[in-house]
Amino acid sequence: MQRILSTQLATTEPGTKVTIAGWIHRRRLLKSVAFLIVRDAAGLSQVVVTDPATREQVERLTEETVVEVTAVVTANEQAPQGVELTSPEILETSRVAVPLPFELHRPALSASLPTQLDHAALALRHPSRAANLRISAAVTRGFRRSLEEQRFVEIHTPKIVESATESGANVFELDYFGRPAYLAQSPQFFKQMMVGVFERVFEVGPVFRAEPSDTARHLAQYTSLDAEMGFIRDHRDVMAALTRTIAGMLGEVTGMIETPGVPDEIPAVHFAEALRIAGAPEDEPDLAPAHERAVGEWALREHGSEFVFVTGYPMRKRPFYTHPDPADPTWSNSFDLLFRGLEIVTGGQRLHRYEDYVAVLGGAGEQGYLDAFRYGMPAHGGWAIGLERFVARLTGAANVREVTAFPRDLHRVAP
Amino acid sequence: MQRILSTQLATTEPGTKVTIAGWIHRRRLLKSVAFLIVRDAAGLSQVVVTDPATREQVERLTEETVVEVTAVVTANEQAPQGVELTSPEILETSRVAVPLPFELHRPALSASLPTQLDHAALALRHPSRAANLRISAAVTRGFRRSLEEQRFVEIHTPKIVESATESGANVFELDYFGRPAYLAQSPQFFKQMMVGVFERVFEVGPVFRAEPSDTARHLAQYTSLDAEMGFIRDHRDVMAALTRTIAGMLGEVTGMIETPGVPDEIPAVHFAEALRIAGAPEDEPDLAPAHERAVGEWALREHGSEFVFVTGYPMRKRPFYTHPDPADPTWSNSFDLLFRGLEIVTGGQRLHRYEDYVAVLGGAGEQGYLDAFRYGMPAHGGWAIGLERFVARLTGAANVREVTAFPRDLHRVAP
Repeated sequence: MQRILSTQLATTEPGTKVTIAGWIHRRRLLKSVAFLIVRDAAGLSQVVVTDPATREQVERLTEETVVEVTAVVTANEQAPQGVELTSPEILETSRVAVPLPFELHRPALSASLPTQLDHAALALRHPSRAANLRISAAVTRGFRRSLEEQRFVEIHTPKIVESATESGANVFELDYFGRPAYLAQSPQFFKQMMVGVFERVFEVGPVFRAEPSDTARHLAQYTSLDAEMGFIRDHRDVMAALTRTIAGMLGEVTGMIETPGVPDEIPAVHFAEALRIAGAPEDEPDLAPAHERAVGEWALREHGSEFVFVTGYPMRKRPFYTHPDPADPTWSNSFDLLFRGLEIVTGGQRLHRYEDYVAVLGGAGEQGYLDAFRYGMPAHGGWAIGLERFVARLTGAANVREVTAFPRDLHRVAP
Repeated sequence: MQRILSTQLATTEPGTKVTIAGWIHRRRLLKSVAFLIVRDAAGLSQVVVTDPATREQVERLTEETVVEVTAVVTANEQAPQGVELTSPEILETSRVAVPLPFELHRPALSASLPTQLDHAALALRHPSRAANLRISAAVTRGFRRSLEEQRFVEIHTPKIVESATESGANVFELDYFGRPAYLAQSPQFFKQMMVGVFERVFEVGPVFRAEPSDTARHLAQYTSLDAEMGFIRDHRDVMAALTRTIAGMLGEVTGMIETPGVPDEIPAVHFAEALRIAGAPEDEPDLAPAHERAVGEWALREHGSEFVFVTGYPMRKRPFYTHPDPADPTWSNSFDLLFRGLEIVTGGQRLHRYEDYVAVLGGAGEQGYLDAFRYGMPAHGGWAIGLERFVARLTGAANVREVTAFPRDLHRVAP
């Protein structure tokens, strides 16, 4: 018999015999009746066992055993979705012979985060962990959809690079056919080169940082949602495209989680003003986490927005390809987007003239990268969203590892 | 003035003043008139220059200079799309001071493939190279769309792994915070673990092979289109989902390229039969490229299909997680999909019982991976499509490097 999903039971005619399949989420053995809760990808089903032989079978079964249950759909107002399954035949397709390291059927996982991560294959089955990853999949879909509507073309770029140009530190070195090479810290150079081909490009892919500190918001590998666009006036065109994209990402999770509103124009403050708002000394070169929180609170209070752009970061704190502010080259045409007081996007306008690259790099730039500028490149800019940070902020997770299936960090390279 | 795209000219009222922007694709300097062909992401525009001062300017300009052209839309049946731009003002926004290493305006690039790859930022601007990458983006979109329609959930998995379990050879080693780790050759173990969470999952991501041979179809990094699904009867359910997915991928490139038909049921031959068709000795353990071509020709001749499944490969040639054929464990419940005589997909049913993994791995399996099977896993299987191979076959490219933006191989790690 063709298997149906738990969510299809409510629309099935009572009295129909159906087959469901899934994992035993929970058993409740009462005196005269036993309940079996079966979990599939769509949700939970309640199976009622009264027959003594089947009851005996259910007593032997353990949680997470995979079963196929053929039974009769029966209306019951007290059951989930108003329907349960009666007179079941239960086929055990995959047995579990050992006790679970932690229980999956309670509303929250009681195991510590390290224990969850050690047993990721099991912990991710918990509905709360699985829900975070579904949200992650949905915002990624929204990112792509929104950018495709805006004429961006998807690209795939190398994760193995010849030199650690963007920033010498925090880079993983590998043995590439006997010579050293490095894992890419971002697709920055490649997406800029591809502006010369498609004008607007995006990539969803892993980036790698040999991050030596162990924090709740850093990973050695994370998913970067990158975009880059040409023929802009300045960074404000990039901010407008990003705003539309963030709205598209949140549009995909409507109904899955409470989503914050995205203003048509997200409030923006200059870096110097952000320092004043945060009460920081005016010679601070960057915003510390506490400053970001203060600016986030200000935006919510003054503009009712959970998002706020900080623009014009000092040139000395931004990478070499950053475009200076033409009015005052101390500052840059760059921005960060803060969401609920945390930086989740970095972006800006880039240099686009060959001579500007020669001036900042001397002779040190990679020829292939510089080619793009030597042979004509329009004014352009872009951004990178850290997927895990964005989803952590959206779901209220305290640690990015809670929204990452198999995190990699200073201490963890398995599973 | 707001810039419009080349493709918008044909629907603009003649006599309107507009601004376009792009790269100088070609100049034609005739006696009484000069033509400037401007390329943008959407296509080409023809600009007619008769004014002596502008003509002088055009004579100085070189190909690939980035320009903004403000001019009048004028009907001309002989021009591309029946429209051209007259009385132009030309603003040079990014100059090119050196001759190009090769010309971009001819129908085909005359530069050798290595020269194109050395100057990828320039070569990819050629319409033929760019078109291949647009096709790549479109089939990737079709892959995701089709799988989402079939209830698959997107996942992101680690590219850095603790050990080279799947196959000890051809793996890149890296320094992971002072200890050895490896670049993932596939997301195989992770997608299997995630079947326990979502039943059906997919991933589009880079995979890494330290491929020591230099061929037209191998890369050190390629894009793998992976899927894995649970609650199957056997590999035939996987083949059915894959068939639907391939049709969805080709559906996205309709109008971009001539697409082959995908039969509702792609013809399938058992490995033993495939050897007979190819005239190969019956004890051959695998299909050589010549055998694949012969089977491909047979499928086209006998079934009118450019696709053909070969099933039941010998167990000894498939990875340890492969599920044997229950009727004869010499053979496996696996398949390859050949497209125009080349293997572009590998897939099959996997082992799903914990005791079967213990039997094949002894104590050598990674605990995190084995957890998934210890705690209950349904029968499952999946596949991996090599994106670059698929697109090369689709476009008729002789070398996968022609459809890869920045290929990585034995000899190349830049740009």
